[in-house]
Amino acid sequence: MISKKMLDLGTKRSVIRDIFEYGNKLAQKIGAENVLDFSLGNPSTPAPDEVANIIKEMVTNLSPKEYNSYTSSPGDREVRIAVSNNLNTRFKTDYTEKNIFMTCGAAASLNIIFKAIIESENDEIIVNTPYFPEYKVFIEGQGAKFVPVKCNKDLLLDIEAIENKISINTKAVLINSPNNPSGVIYPKENIGELVKLLNRKQKEYNHPIFLISDEPYRELVFIDEHPTFLPNVYDNTLVAYSWSKSLSLPGERIGYILVPGKVKEYENVFAAISGAARVLGYVCAPSMFQKVIKHCVSVEPDISVYRINRNILFKELPKMGYKAANPDGAFYMFIKSPNDDGYDFCERAKKYNMLLVPGEGFGMKEYVRLSFCVETEKIEKSIDIFKKLISEYDGEK
Amino acid sequence: MISKKMLDLGTKRSVIRDIFEYGNKLAQKIGAENVLDFSLGNPSTPAPDEVANIIKEMVTNLSPKEYNSYTSSPGDREVRIAVSNNLNTRFKTDYTEKNIFMTCGAAASLNIIFKAIIESENDEIIVNTPYFPEYKVFIEGQGAKFVPVKCNKDLLLDIEAIENKISINTKAVLINSPNNPSGVIYPKENIGELVKLLNRKQKEYNHPIFLISDEPYRELVFIDEHPTFLPNVYDNTLVAYSWSKSLSLPGERIGYILVPGKVKEYENVFAAISGAARVLGYVCAPSMFQKVIKHCVSVEPDISVYRINRNILFKELPKMGYKAANPDGAFYMFIKSPNDDGYDFCERAKKYNMLLVPGEGFGMKEYVRLSFCVETEKIEKSIDIFKKLISEYDGEK
Repeated sequence: MISKKMLDLGTKRSVIRDIFEYGNKLAQKIGAENVLDFSLGNPSTPAPDEVANIIKEMVTNLSPKEYNSYTSSPGDREVRIAVSNNLNTRFKTDYTEKNIFMTCGAAASLNIIFKAIIESENDEIIVNTPYFPEYKVFIEGQGAKFVPVKCNKDLLLDIEAIENKISINTKAVLINSPNNPSGVIYPKENIGELVKLLNRKQKEYNHPIFLISDEPYRELVFIDEHPTFLPNVYDNTLVAYSWSKSLSLPGERIGYILVPGKVKEYENVFAAISGAARVLGYVCAPSMFQKVIKHCVSVEPDISVYRINRNILFKELPKMGYKAANPDGAFYMFIKSPNDDGYDFCERAKKYNMLLVPGEGFGMKEYVRLSFCVETEKIEKSIDIFKKLISEYDGEK
Repeated sequence: MISKKMLDLGTKRSVIRDIFEYGNKLAQKIGAENVLDFSLGNPSTPAPDEVANIIKEMVTNLSPKEYNSYTSSPGDREVRIAVSNNLNTRFKTDYTEKNIFMTCGAAASLNIIFKAIIESENDEIIVNTPYFPEYKVFIEGQGAKFVPVKCNKDLLLDIEAIENKISINTKAVLINSPNNPSGVIYPKENIGELVKLLNRKQKEYNHPIFLISDEPYRELVFIDEHPTFLPNVYDNTLVAYSWSKSLSLPGERIGYILVPGKVKEYENVFAAISGAARVLGYVCAPSMFQKVIKHCVSVEPDISVYRINRNILFKELPKMGYKAANPDGAFYMFIKSPNDDGYDFCERAKKYNMLLVPGEGFGMKEYVRLSFCVETEKIEKSIDIFKKLISEYDGEK
């Protein structure tokens, strides 16, 4: 009577959401201030004042028709010009509005890209582990094979492992840097090796392999080396961007797809993106927030709280003996469970009302993910708990 | 290298959009005031003041985290309660938030429903002609067969014709009343016959047949008899709603799916809806506009301009000899071309800088669609042109 696949996806909800709801119930029982909920990537820093200010200005001075009406399906032209200019300034590129397709956030961007490029059920998309769990849902939902490739021991791209998985059916490689859940930024050299591999394989198979760059965390960086802007090093790059994290607008569903002019058959790819958005029911990106972006595209995100939290965690936890991925960007700490069992660690943390996400959904079950986009007070409270937790394992050895 | 289907959909854009862009170019040449552009269903009446007022109140008094954050995927609980209460008051129902799934507008609602219920490529969805052209794109895009059934001579549901097309593979019948492009509201008796047929066929095939009610025009009604609220007459009804037209918020992408408790296996259907939204990348409906809806769900739409326009057109055009569908609701007039060739009529109208949409895309090539959601002045200007146009045909007979 209904699709079993959809029923499964709706019933077996994401582990992250389940923990989040467990946290909500716990909060009702013992008070929200007593729950250390590190499960969700919901920014704790509010959107910058510029956002509320420009909205107030719009609703005060403009006719609603100027901001509530349909835009063209790739988005308002002036908004797309503003986005392309911002990229040009930062990355020395020469994009125009014709390279930008405004979307309802990164999940929409990715689904539209997958729908646009997937031709048959034999198509494969390589994803680097650890990965955002919904990648699997989106790729399989749009009809291709999800091919995970495990990272190397430093949680960077394992180029040899990727090479082993590339085949004539490889449609794209998906990269997410800064990475959710690890926070790792793939260094320039690591990216360089991947690019070399992809160029070689494109020639070998005589067809393009897309590099899809999922960049919701591009602006959330704590180290000097910013993530490589991939379109500048690999021609067939498609970028999926979202302002959910950088401007703290996760509920507003606003982002874009960048289709650089260097992409092979750029015009056809852009047209296929338009067709995919159409067939998925994405009529246009929310119009008022498109206009917000026009005015706020150059606003720098405030990552000061995330930086404080990150510094506390990465100072204290390794001292206790925890192993964690490099704290380069995003707002996640990916911590190895002392006994290599992420589920077990999460269960033990629950006793202290501390909520983490087991790594299995991200493809690495020996880890747990901690989201530090929370009040610093909660991070400070967590330190003692982490001490107690690791000492539990000491006793067991 | 990319999906040919998506390329086609992105290249052969909708006829409506093409005419709209032709109109934009014409406006640049001769001035917008001289183009009688009746091509798009973009509301000319701005959103009611209540919308701007509540937004101003939110951005002035609340922390951005209260309105920009993720909501749960079916939507903010209080918003869904407000929507269900509004339905309960108007339609004497007993819905709760558990029957409402907030979406990014009607196109999202429909795609999510199709994705949730379609099980195999043999599944068929019956659509009544004339129909909104994107129905075909959405249904085929989600993997089912699009089965159009022509209306009867009064542009109502042809029950016998529908019966002839119902088969063991019929998954759903899609109804749109008030109808785009005809403006017709299917009368109670007509709906009653359909319901009888569907109940009989459900028994015969021993599986549910969904009735999908696409209701963006529910509130835009010019006659005393309002459209039947389908969930009250047929148990397996799913409603796709949008505030695009009723609150003039087409760019904001805000609507809902109603899954009544009487739907067979209601819980599974609601779960499949959640799964489908997830797999299509609809993380949540835009959060600020969810909250706008909470406050504006009872605001009555202002249809006064549409009513004036409709009255002028339906007084003048039939007098000249034009035949048109009943002017019951929505903001469209569906006019029969004097020589039964809608394309020809549209081409002739272009000479007078009047832009209409040929009926073929709606499944009836002998008609043209006129959108009267425009300034009344333009409707008045059109009257003389319609006179000239019909006299052209007189000379040809």
